[in-house]
Amino acid sequence: MTDSEIQSAILDMGRLARAASYALAKLTTEQKNAILIAMADEIMARQDAILAANALDLARAEVNGLSKAMLDRLTLDPKRLNAIAEALREVALLPDPVGEKLAEWTRPNGLRIRKVRVPIGVIGIIFESRPNVTTDAASLCFKTGNATILRGGSEAIDSNRALAAALQAGGERAGLPPDSIQLIPFTDRSSVEHMAKMDQYLDLIIPRGGKGLIEKVVATARMPVIKHYDGICHVYVHADADQQMAADIIINSKCQKPGVCNALETILVHQDVATSFYPLVGKRLAEAKVEIRGDAAALQHLGVPAKAATEEDWTTEYLDLILAAKTVTGIDEAILHINRYGSHHTDSIITKDRTVAERFQHEVDSAVVVHNASTRFNDGGEFGFGAEIGISTDKLHARGPMGLAELCSYKYWLDGTGQVRA
Amino acid sequence: MTDSEIQSAILDMGRLARAASYALAKLTTEQKNAILIAMADEIMARQDAILAANALDLARAEVNGLSKAMLDRLTLDPKRLNAIAEALREVALLPDPVGEKLAEWTRPNGLRIRKVRVPIGVIGIIFESRPNVTTDAASLCFKTGNATILRGGSEAIDSNRALAAALQAGGERAGLPPDSIQLIPFTDRSSVEHMAKMDQYLDLIIPRGGKGLIEKVVATARMPVIKHYDGICHVYVHADADQQMAADIIINSKCQKPGVCNALETILVHQDVATSFYPLVGKRLAEAKVEIRGDAAALQHLGVPAKAATEEDWTTEYLDLILAAKTVTGIDEAILHINRYGSHHTDSIITKDRTVAERFQHEVDSAVVVHNASTRFNDGGEFGFGAEIGISTDKLHARGPMGLAELCSYKYWLDGTGQVRA
Repeated sequence: MTDSEIQSAILDMGRLARAASYALAKLTTEQKNAILIAMADEIMARQDAILAANALDLARAEVNGLSKAMLDRLTLDPKRLNAIAEALREVALLPDPVGEKLAEWTRPNGLRIRKVRVPIGVIGIIFESRPNVTTDAASLCFKTGNATILRGGSEAIDSNRALAAALQAGGERAGLPPDSIQLIPFTDRSSVEHMAKMDQYLDLIIPRGGKGLIEKVVATARMPVIKHYDGICHVYVHADADQQMAADIIINSKCQKPGVCNALETILVHQDVATSFYPLVGKRLAEAKVEIRGDAAALQHLGVPAKAATEEDWTTEYLDLILAAKTVTGIDEAILHINRYGSHHTDSIITKDRTVAERFQHEVDSAVVVHNASTRFNDGGEFGFGAEIGISTDKLHARGPMGLAELCSYKYWLDGTGQVRA
Repeated sequence: MTDSEIQSAILDMGRLARAASYALAKLTTEQKNAILIAMADEIMARQDAILAANALDLARAEVNGLSKAMLDRLTLDPKRLNAIAEALREVALLPDPVGEKLAEWTRPNGLRIRKVRVPIGVIGIIFESRPNVTTDAASLCFKTGNATILRGGSEAIDSNRALAAALQAGGERAGLPPDSIQLIPFTDRSSVEHMAKMDQYLDLIIPRGGKGLIEKVVATARMPVIKHYDGICHVYVHADADQQMAADIIINSKCQKPGVCNALETILVHQDVATSFYPLVGKRLAEAKVEIRGDAAALQHLGVPAKAATEEDWTTEYLDLILAAKTVTGIDEAILHINRYGSHHTDSIITKDRTVAERFQHEVDSAVVVHNASTRFNDGGEFGFGAEIGISTDKLHARGPMGLAELCSYKYWLDGTGQVRA
């Protein structure tokens, strides 16, 4: 395809998506839930076809020499397909935020103002190899009445096509407006750029994937982008901390799932407890096979083998069993370090002093600031949101876990009796 | 200045603004209000110096042949300066949204979650010739605990420098952290681009000015932009409308202040009342010296001179005493027309039927959808917000009038007793 053919195809999809968004906004919650169930049924009914499509992706991936981890993320099997269908059914069970009245007041002139939650409109999702993002993202956007244009990675194109076809066919049989969920059927790289410039049709773009992809979208996009950048998360152990609790929280934050954005990357330890706390946590980290990169005081007191930390360690998201350790003079230095080197994602303080904790929560400039608990709680499920489309490191519109409510906008309804401005 | 000198100067300002934002976030409401009052006092104390600086801008403007309207917008005098100081005092009286608890709940594991309103951080304001934007924007951003970097137009650079110096000197005497309010002191065009790319320091950029400026910022910015584009606003007169009320609302929406974004640009009239309503409103519009551009039915029934409308009229923001008129078959066509040609700003329906009005409010995809009142009510003051930084035509973060609350973000405070994830 030539670049102008790609642009024209993307613009056509945008125009159709905008029209679909107006049809979607009229669906009732019951209609939307029935459509989600029909989509789940169709995924199961098409199991053989979807797995056959996935086999094409996997065969291509082997030829192209994809890593074992990448192959695993790409692979669908009956169990994973069942989980995909189950996830659709779970979205059907979630409360619908659309139509919720967010505020209501009456002005002295009698004008009644209602602020009402509404769909955003058309959302573009750009994602990499995991095919389940197709159904996850599409179903959450659909539940909130948004039309979607999905652009998956080339590695998963056959799986994505088969999954999108199942969502469309199953959904449309139950009343899904055509073009509500569109997958870009080709994988030319320039499609990302054309999507990012199409602000007349796309109200929001959500890139899900590596930093390179997100950077590219941010640099190009004319519409709002909600990003899910690095998580360089900290635990600060204050002088008065319950040290067993601190060690438990550090082990959990680092080791429970090291490859995710809310996993711990750096511990900050108050200098007054360096001699007592470092040996305690050092032993636990060594048992958990965590490699430590420490400053001088940490290396001196940890009591287990550790490497010397460099400046780069304070800004590295390891996503692995590696932990940086720094000794600080107190809460001021801890806050300064976190605001300077962190990624404004999730940071935790361990202290018995509520006043100190509140100061930390006030002054640390992060989406989620935790007192005496694991960093791993920055998560839509753990917040009770039921589902999440990601964890935003932005400060506008959505910050922290993004659930269904964050996939909505609002509008104002004004009701008068002939009021005019004086 | 070379381009790299400009970039380096802007990056320095960004770094200083980020540091200031952390100091600002610690100020109490009382401290902030005292600072606002001190700024107002300093504006009045420096009246002669500010008017002298303004005279330099005006002299340059005369040489450059600026239009009379532009000159008027640029001009400061003792009365306008007093209004600027008064506006600062009014911002001091407004309630402070920072620190407000937006939600609070406790999870089954005992983890307490609080969602707290916080400043956004650092906001860039890019604006054109009116010098009062300097103080308006800076004071609203400051009240909400945000640091600002202001980039005004070259026409007003001397006035802007004098006003910013007064805000800084007056404010700092009362405890304003240095670098909280910075004005870019030079007017090289590339400063806009360097601001727009500085997403490590600027959390939000708000362009205030013409479409060219906004387009440029949107195309370049890496951080969120809140836009205030055109207002192509409609009034739809349903078949059952109170026709006197409809005519009153149309006249008010069009004529009360034709040059603003929430002024009316197109009326849509139900075909069943074309013969009765067009003559009624035509007479009123002619009395108000409004030029009409109508479709065939409008031209036939208006009873006053009118031009034939072209397709272009449906998408034109006249900002003048000109009105487009189109006859529609009913509410479906009205909604289709508004969603297709409008700018998603403000649209009004005149009807006695509440069900019809609610359908219009549901299906018209605009920030503010009005029933039986003027489009001119899409305004922060009319909403009771006390102040507004603009009217957003975006759907993310802020839609419609943007008051102080919309200049804030939020963060989550989590409080535990040692919780870890299983």
